Amino acid sequence: MVLGNEVYDKVFRSIDVNADKFVEVLEEAVAIVSISAEPEHRDDCVKMSHWAKAKLESIGATAELVDAGIQHLHDGTQLPLPPIVFAQLGKDPKKKTLLVYGHLDVQPAKKEDGWNTDPFVLTEIDGKLFGRGSTDDKGPVIGWIHAIRTLQENGIDLPINMKFVFECMEEAGSEGLDEALHNRKDFLQDVDFTCISDNYWLGKKKPCLTYGLRGISYFFVKVECAKQDLHSGCYGGSIHEALPDLLWVLSQLTNIDGTINIEGLNEMVAPVTDDEKEIYPKIDFCIKEYQNDLGAHGLTRKTKEEILMRRWRFPSLSLHGVEGAFDGPGSKTVIPAKVTGKFSIRTVPNMTPEKVDEVVVAHLNKLWATRGSPNRFEVIPQHAGRVWLSDPNHPNFQAGAKAMKRVFDVEPDLTREGGSIPVTLSFQELTGKNVMLLPIGACDDMAHSQNEKINRRNYIEGTKVLAAYLLELGEFQ
Amino acid sequence: MVLGNEVYDKVFRSIDVNADKFVEVLEEAVAIVSISAEPEHRDDCVKMSHWAKAKLESIGATAELVDAGIQHLHDGTQLPLPPIVFAQLGKDPKKKTLLVYGHLDVQPAKKEDGWNTDPFVLTEIDGKLFGRGSTDDKGPVIGWIHAIRTLQENGIDLPINMKFVFECMEEAGSEGLDEALHNRKDFLQDVDFTCISDNYWLGKKKPCLTYGLRGISYFFVKVECAKQDLHSGCYGGSIHEALPDLLWVLSQLTNIDGTINIEGLNEMVAPVTDDEKEIYPKIDFCIKEYQNDLGAHGLTRKTKEEILMRRWRFPSLSLHGVEGAFDGPGSKTVIPAKVTGKFSIRTVPNMTPEKVDEVVVAHLNKLWATRGSPNRFEVIPQHAGRVWLSDPNHPNFQAGAKAMKRVFDVEPDLTREGGSIPVTLSFQELTGKNVMLLPIGACDDMAHSQNEKINRRNYIEGTKVLAAYLLELGEFQ
Repeated sequence: MVLGNEVYDKVFRSIDVNADKFVEVLEEAVAIVSISAEPEHRDDCVKMSHWAKAKLESIGATAELVDAGIQHLHDGTQLPLPPIVFAQLGKDPKKKTLLVYGHLDVQPAKKEDGWNTDPFVLTEIDGKLFGRGSTDDKGPVIGWIHAIRTLQENGIDLPINMKFVFECMEEAGSEGLDEALHNRKDFLQDVDFTCISDNYWLGKKKPCLTYGLRGISYFFVKVECAKQDLHSGCYGGSIHEALPDLLWVLSQLTNIDGTINIEGLNEMVAPVTDDEKEIYPKIDFCIKEYQNDLGAHGLTRKTKEEILMRRWRFPSLSLHGVEGAFDGPGSKTVIPAKVTGKFSIRTVPNMTPEKVDEVVVAHLNKLWATRGSPNRFEVIPQHAGRVWLSDPNHPNFQAGAKAMKRVFDVEPDLTREGGSIPVTLSFQELTGKNVMLLPIGACDDMAHSQNEKINRRNYIEGTKVLAAYLLELGEFQ
Repeated sequence: MVLGNEVYDKVFRSIDVNADKFVEVLEEAVAIVSISAEPEHRDDCVKMSHWAKAKLESIGATAELVDAGIQHLHDGTQLPLPPIVFAQLGKDPKKKTLLVYGHLDVQPAKKEDGWNTDPFVLTEIDGKLFGRGSTDDKGPVIGWIHAIRTLQENGIDLPINMKFVFECMEEAGSEGLDEALHNRKDFLQDVDFTCISDNYWLGKKKPCLTYGLRGISYFFVKVECAKQDLHSGCYGGSIHEALPDLLWVLSQLTNIDGTINIEGLNEMVAPVTDDEKEIYPKIDFCIKEYQNDLGAHGLTRKTKEEILMRRWRFPSLSLHGVEGAFDGPGSKTVIPAKVTGKFSIRTVPNMTPEKVDEVVVAHLNKLWATRGSPNRFEVIPQHAGRVWLSDPNHPNFQAGAKAMKRVFDVEPDLTREGGSIPVTLSFQELTGKNVMLLPIGACDDMAHSQNEKINRRNYIEGTKVLAAYLLELGEFQ
């Protein structure tokens, strides 16, 4: 059944009419401080799961809260994980079934980190909706709800059955999700396509569909020099301090051009093929604009193709910070006794978490042995997410491309991404079917950073894309 | 006039009788969160100055709050400094005049840093009084008040005139104090001796008098790579990150044996003389016990003499931490955009702050040039305190030694210290007279650290030493 353009036009007009209401719902979600990495906000994550369940029920879905088990924290304590929302809308055996995944937890955020507005109060300035989670990933999740509600309000039958998995631990490694999905294989077994809206356009104006993601392997490096922090005047010069040891180790892991200096790591990377090389020149991307937008003092490479490959298909290592040292403003004269450095590696085919952990731990221990320090040293691999590659020629991607063409009047770029959404691969493996990433936010949305935002235009036009995509998917019955 | 032993005995008994009351007053002082390095606690520092003024007036002193001017914070804002308490007790032209200095501000402290008790609630466990400021320096300051009150209550005339300078910015570089002292040279002009109780015994059992202190030069090192923090997945690999640059620079400043690796710095250090070498073997100090008490995994030298010299008469460089990077528990996947590394150098004769700043800035800039990074780099010297050396054969020290002998029945060791009390030198220069450090706390009091404490015994016997010292000073009229 091919729908006429007038059906799409009606849906789009209806979304425009309700735009302010849709922004209010996002405001409500942003106000819930669902920071999954901070145990003190665990209750807010639970609250967020309940909120999502209620929203799904309001569009007629059958929703349940699935227990995700217990989290074993770094310090030895245990904490229940927030429940995962599983939901279903429509069970027509003649229709195909689309699975939608999203997350409603967020990265940490404090006003004093440099936010211009309260991160948990959605604030519109010049068409930008600022707030933690506005683009990653509360806005897109809510977009699905509003897309479906709009079809319903306009009396349009959903041409597909839908299933939903919404979680609240994505920013802390999606702990508990894989196990919950494995326990509920029945829920996933009739899924025909999966769509996830949890990434970003490559630029600010042209939409894209994404068929690849890097994985991530996260590490803690602990050095201990004494049983507690010491006065640097009284003790400085007499003991081996922990912080110089840690900073030295961390400073040895990358070269000045950003390549990784860990034995055995680069050897795992799949070579660039000739076919692959042909994709890059076509992509709409300007490195000058990219650098300017970031206010970056320098890029690690000089061409568009190289920079995109550095972001998408080569591994990178970022140092995130140090826990346990003096981190406030002002000047404290302390010798920190126990410090934990944090870094992560973004991984690409054919790297696996097991092999990455193995070479990283071996390399750091070897490096430490050359340091000659009497201090205690330990490398602790944390959560890891594997790499993902999909087939961008599948009908799922064709439906996505058509939907974007309807809303933006342009063919989307086919891109990969540097970030990690480990569940993407889980869904591909568990359903055995195509998974597509359909981003609605722009490249400058500053996910994970200060002043995260989603443009009102992206939020509203994105809702239209999701609605159109649902209708286009109906064409493949 | 030589006082009989019975006078001292009466005073000591009276201090014992009032011990619990003296602990209550310390509890009151610890409860005021006078953290001078944290602007949000500035009001508490002001409150502390008023508290000290009232205490001095309660023993009959004439006290005033002297305006200390304006502080220009790192972020460009301005904040009034807490007033400094100047006070005077007795004006008999036939008596000598003793100046007492102390400070009532404290280092930062948070329960979650690893305190076993609330740092701002004085808590007695097994004869130890735990609380921020208990030993550094609220306990000793209050000791003076109680020593004088006890003499008064026992009808004993103070054999000397006394002057007091109590400040609330010591832990943040004593900002405003030097200027206030220079403006009030009249106040200092008739001072004959100065005594400061703001350091610690070398060990846990044997008292000491201190005739030397290291200075301090504090530095911020800023590296900026972008205008704001970035998602490590989206951007990792494409930009030059700030944190590897900063950690590399910081990791180059010391060698593994703790010696400083900054061109031109060690050349300033006065050579060890033969006379000096003879002092060290006599000192009561065990490096095994020292290492065990700290729970340190290693010391930088193997003998008592070398370790004491590393702490007292050679410079040391300690890394304190990084501001602006991820510092919480858990795992955040951020590329910090603007990071500030903090380190300080403990200085010794003949190093001067001006020359130290000069060689440090020059060395770091030179080091940075070899890094080949496009990022923005800046070294910013912060507050500095100069080194201090006194004459331990002066009658001031003899009175201190006699007082300690009366209370502890042992000749105190003559020591130097690794920490910095910059005002010590200021008082020596402004009065042109002898300055003595008379510590009452023990070496394991953990000033600046978690679980700071003063032993009840040290607090009470220390009060006796201060009272006895005032009486012994009278012998030198």
